Amino acid sequence: MMHQLRSSLVKNKKSKILLLVLDGVGGLPFPKLTELEAAKTPTLDKFVKKSETGAHTPIISGITPGSGSAHLALFGYDPLSYDIGRGVLEALGLDVHIGEKDLLIRGNFASVKRIGSKDIVTDRRAGRISTKINNRLVDLLNSKIKKIDQVGVKFVSGLDHRFVCKLSFKKKLDPQECMIIDTDPEEIGVEPVLPNHINRKSSPVSKIVIKLIAELKKVLKDEKKANFALLRGFSVYPEIPKFKELYNLEAASIVTYPMYKGISKLVGMNPLTVKDLSIKEQVSTLKNEYKNYDFFYFHIKKTDSYGEDGNYKGKIKIIEDFDKHLKNIMKLNFDVVCITGDHSTPSKMKSHSWHPVPVMINSKNSFYGTSNRFTEKECIKGNLGLFEGKSLMNYILAHADMLAKFGA
Amino acid sequence: MMHQLRSSLVKNKKSKILLLVLDGVGGLPFPKLTELEAAKTPTLDKFVKKSETGAHTPIISGITPGSGSAHLALFGYDPLSYDIGRGVLEALGLDVHIGEKDLLIRGNFASVKRIGSKDIVTDRRAGRISTKINNRLVDLLNSKIKKIDQVGVKFVSGLDHRFVCKLSFKKKLDPQECMIIDTDPEEIGVEPVLPNHINRKSSPVSKIVIKLIAELKKVLKDEKKANFALLRGFSVYPEIPKFKELYNLEAASIVTYPMYKGISKLVGMNPLTVKDLSIKEQVSTLKNEYKNYDFFYFHIKKTDSYGEDGNYKGKIKIIEDFDKHLKNIMKLNFDVVCITGDHSTPSKMKSHSWHPVPVMINSKNSFYGTSNRFTEKECIKGNLGLFEGKSLMNYILAHADMLAKFGA
Repeated sequence: MMHQLRSSLVKNKKSKILLLVLDGVGGLPFPKLTELEAAKTPTLDKFVKKSETGAHTPIISGITPGSGSAHLALFGYDPLSYDIGRGVLEALGLDVHIGEKDLLIRGNFASVKRIGSKDIVTDRRAGRISTKINNRLVDLLNSKIKKIDQVGVKFVSGLDHRFVCKLSFKKKLDPQECMIIDTDPEEIGVEPVLPNHINRKSSPVSKIVIKLIAELKKVLKDEKKANFALLRGFSVYPEIPKFKELYNLEAASIVTYPMYKGISKLVGMNPLTVKDLSIKEQVSTLKNEYKNYDFFYFHIKKTDSYGEDGNYKGKIKIIEDFDKHLKNIMKLNFDVVCITGDHSTPSKMKSHSWHPVPVMINSKNSFYGTSNRFTEKECIKGNLGLFEGKSLMNYILAHADMLAKFGA
Repeated sequence: MMHQLRSSLVKNKKSKILLLVLDGVGGLPFPKLTELEAAKTPTLDKFVKKSETGAHTPIISGITPGSGSAHLALFGYDPLSYDIGRGVLEALGLDVHIGEKDLLIRGNFASVKRIGSKDIVTDRRAGRISTKINNRLVDLLNSKIKKIDQVGVKFVSGLDHRFVCKLSFKKKLDPQECMIIDTDPEEIGVEPVLPNHINRKSSPVSKIVIKLIAELKKVLKDEKKANFALLRGFSVYPEIPKFKELYNLEAASIVTYPMYKGISKLVGMNPLTVKDLSIKEQVSTLKNEYKNYDFFYFHIKKTDSYGEDGNYKGKIKIIEDFDKHLKNIMKLNFDVVCITGDHSTPSKMKSHSWHPVPVMINSKNSFYGTSNRFTEKECIKGNLGLFEGKSLMNYILAHADMLAKFGA
């Protein structure tokens, strides 16, 4: 409904829009200040005073999102209607071609120990093995496992302990035939979960996955650390309308991690090359490509990584580092600059959370004067109030003067 | 859903309710204060301190409404379900009888200039010709154009450059057969838009409109200013439940502009006579008719008109003028007085906008003490928070003790 309404109102008008996403930026007082409150951010402080502010709930009240669904919401898709599997997201990020007969799985190399008759998980990430070791293991797997029954099997290395497995079936797959439980138990000291099917229709696929795991175990059995693999995010390629078609925007992404590259490609953005993982190089790319696109999605990952590690100081440092680059970004004279996070990752919780995420929108149409800093407490005072993440694009397009009036 | 729930809870109880709508009252800091912030409003300041406050988003986040859809929301109708065309609204305001075989069109006399083989729009409002000239032109059109093929044609004068055209077909019209594009290009220096059909079903109606425009042009060709007409808001009469049936309220409107009269009639209100366009005369009418109705919709238009003109000082003056009359209004002892706008019209933007609109509800049930002034920033602090316009009537009925408890 919102999709259709909004698309019907999009004007044939060009604008320059920047969406800056500090992954997991929202925090909790720890013990007194959140990471955003503790960070020294003179440039954010300056611009937030001239911006419209509020906070978004990524999905709906109390629901903690994964990165994929949180980003879909930021891009204006209802994350409850478009549920995209981790397998597909990772595969897109690794430039794996996906067809309609393919099932995608995200894998982690892991360590297990035989205790009695059971395999017990001792490390869910195999001690975060290097990408080099990962490459060797993936080559080994590809040479040893080419088919399970009639199904083609292909492994692709990700960073560190991560890989993607693509199962190519003989016929087009229905998502309802691929409802398989993640095998990652999400804790150590227990057995891996069996890849059970959630519905009866998925039973044949489940049987293939059980055989795949047996093969994997056989090939990896002599490895010191990575003697097992945990599989999750079983998923098929979703049909999703593209950015250009929804908003009439030529969009590009400036991201450094595969999954975010993947999700940006999924919605029709062009992922731009960034020389290294630094914010500095991301800003260079933005400058160089400024004239070539209408919309830029600029993603900073480390705020989330440090939050997940419980590294309060590290997260503050990234926010401060971003703030130092913000001055140069603002010099580019975008019509609309929106700064927010995809969700909160409080260092105190060491995980994603459902807490509202501060939002600021800077444009000539901003209702400003409500917030003195870009923090959780200051932004919620703003006139956008608390809203669902999927509405953010409405506001961004409105600020860009890109939406026609609704109704007479 | 909301409609049904609410109606099922409405008690058989009388109350005196006043809904004061300052059209387009919300603004933006320009450069520092909004119009509401800059205005001296001692009476509003006094009553807001004893009122429940919040802000409404007219339609949904980021969507800028037309006056019709914004008002429908204020009256408790979901504006996405009841989309009423401008043609119908204008016609209702001019007391045009509308049947189920009629197509209504809002027209503007306009100026075009022949350049090469093209008619180029030079003034979309024909220099805002007087109503007197308008009357002459409408008489001329009615004498020259009585039928297009089998379809009856009738013109009715509005104010200044505005008119309504009613096309009476031989059979009942389906809205799906009347999906015609506005011919107003919304800018000058370009050709008028062709009245194309949006779907195949509307092709026959589109053909009639093309012939109508050719006839109009012929009749008007020797006029100095008004040598053309732009048509928009092609619409048929909508079925909409009435105020009495939804809320058990006898309702009246105190409005000075045709369109608002139209929308109030559409929802079943009785438009009361006002001697002239002044707020003073509107207040007199309110006093005189106080005992005859349960619910009054009192509309002040000029806040919007000045906003559209970018006349910041003019808009402030209207707010101050209203404030002077408010003391007398409050003396009438309504059970519930709600003051708000239908949408924002910031002088800075010279147009309607999507920004939240302040709301105050004064009743014996008010949660007060949250806002010191009736301004955007002060009202959003209130305990109603930010809500969609269509929920306002829930609050108004609740404050009037008119809604029974839901559930056991």
